[in-house]
Amino acid sequence: MSKTIEFFWEPGSPYTYLAATQLEALAKDTGATVVWKPFLLGKVFEARKMSLPAAVPQKAAYMFKDLARWAQIYQTPVTMPKVFPVHSLAASRAAIAADQLGHASKAALAILKAYWGEGQDISQPEVLAAALSKAGLDAAAILAKSQEQSVKDQLKANTEDALNRGVFGAPSFFVGDAMFWGNDRLDILKLVLQGKIKA
Amino acid sequence: MSKTIEFFWEPGSPYTYLAATQLEALAKDTGATVVWKPFLLGKVFEARKMSLPAAVPQKAAYMFKDLARWAQIYQTPVTMPKVFPVHSLAASRAAIAADQLGHASKAALAILKAYWGEGQDISQPEVLAAALSKAGLDAAAILAKSQEQSVKDQLKANTEDALNRGVFGAPSFFVGDAMFWGNDRLDILKLVLQGKIKA
Repeated sequence: MSKTIEFFWEPGSPYTYLAATQLEALAKDTGATVVWKPFLLGKVFEARKMSLPAAVPQKAAYMFKDLARWAQIYQTPVTMPKVFPVHSLAASRAAIAADQLGHASKAALAILKAYWGEGQDISQPEVLAAALSKAGLDAAAILAKSQEQSVKDQLKANTEDALNRGVFGAPSFFVGDAMFWGNDRLDILKLVLQGKIKA
Repeated sequence: MSKTIEFFWEPGSPYTYLAATQLEALAKDTGATVVWKPFLLGKVFEARKMSLPAAVPQKAAYMFKDLARWAQIYQTPVTMPKVFPVHSLAASRAAIAADQLGHASKAALAILKAYWGEGQDISQPEVLAAALSKAGLDAAAILAKSQEQSVKDQLKANTEDALNRGVFGAPSFFVGDAMFWGNDRLDILKLVLQGKIKA
């Protein structure tokens, strides 16, 4: 049986970044395939009448300490971006354009690393272009394509799909109908993919 | 160096129950001592202007699936209590009274298991008494003591302490000044206690 992980992700989410750095290794270990689905987390928060987790100051303060712990565990850099929250529409469209060109994971990781690993302002087209180029991608082709209606429509469709399937945060993973929320559920996702627990 | 885990807990929190079932084994493995600190989570949510996590229906639906996964991993029963949320003041006071009588962990586990393992209405004194007795404790002595002013004061003091130290949810663990939030941070708590990562 071929197994698929649908990964609903948003550039502005730090736990999405952390999860994304681990996801391909997890997929390889479990014989699964990742489908990268950028979506508009802001629209989901709006629809669910939720506020940003960082809206509670004590929670925000804790979150940054927690991120620093995960950075040590994953041995990956995590930094506080100079612009937060960030306007992530252009980045998400670029990710979808890259996917249509066959480079979903490379583009997703390039965008997430530029923002959460290096703290760059990914709302700026030149920053996006540099990040994509650095990952060996054709930034000009991706950014041109990201203006196409099919790309805009796909981002809307992914967001609708997230809403219809009960997503309320990022990252969210699906294996069939089973949803998993958060970087901290990667171990459970793995146990389910390995058939060790029921979803 | 003797290590102490301060465990801020609330009977009404399912992730507190899950964490409590694992905590003593973790403490033993790491040579740490647990200080059980019941507190009023409702007061913290109020002070932080937060709503219950289960207030978003999609989040509540997910949470119960997530709990069922943890139940499999920990091999411990988790059930949806017939009364939720529950009025937990009497149970928290009983936990503090039991602590003053030298039985903090036994009483905490008895209360949490009665509510989240068996779904009983722990707001009822006779249910509390039965749960404490079943755990081998002197329920009458504990419930009598739970009416004392020093017990009421201690519960208020624990809640103030939680507020002053940045708590925004349950369970919350402290090792010195370092806070850890959630059953899903037990592994990180362990790494910190073992000196494998910095807090």
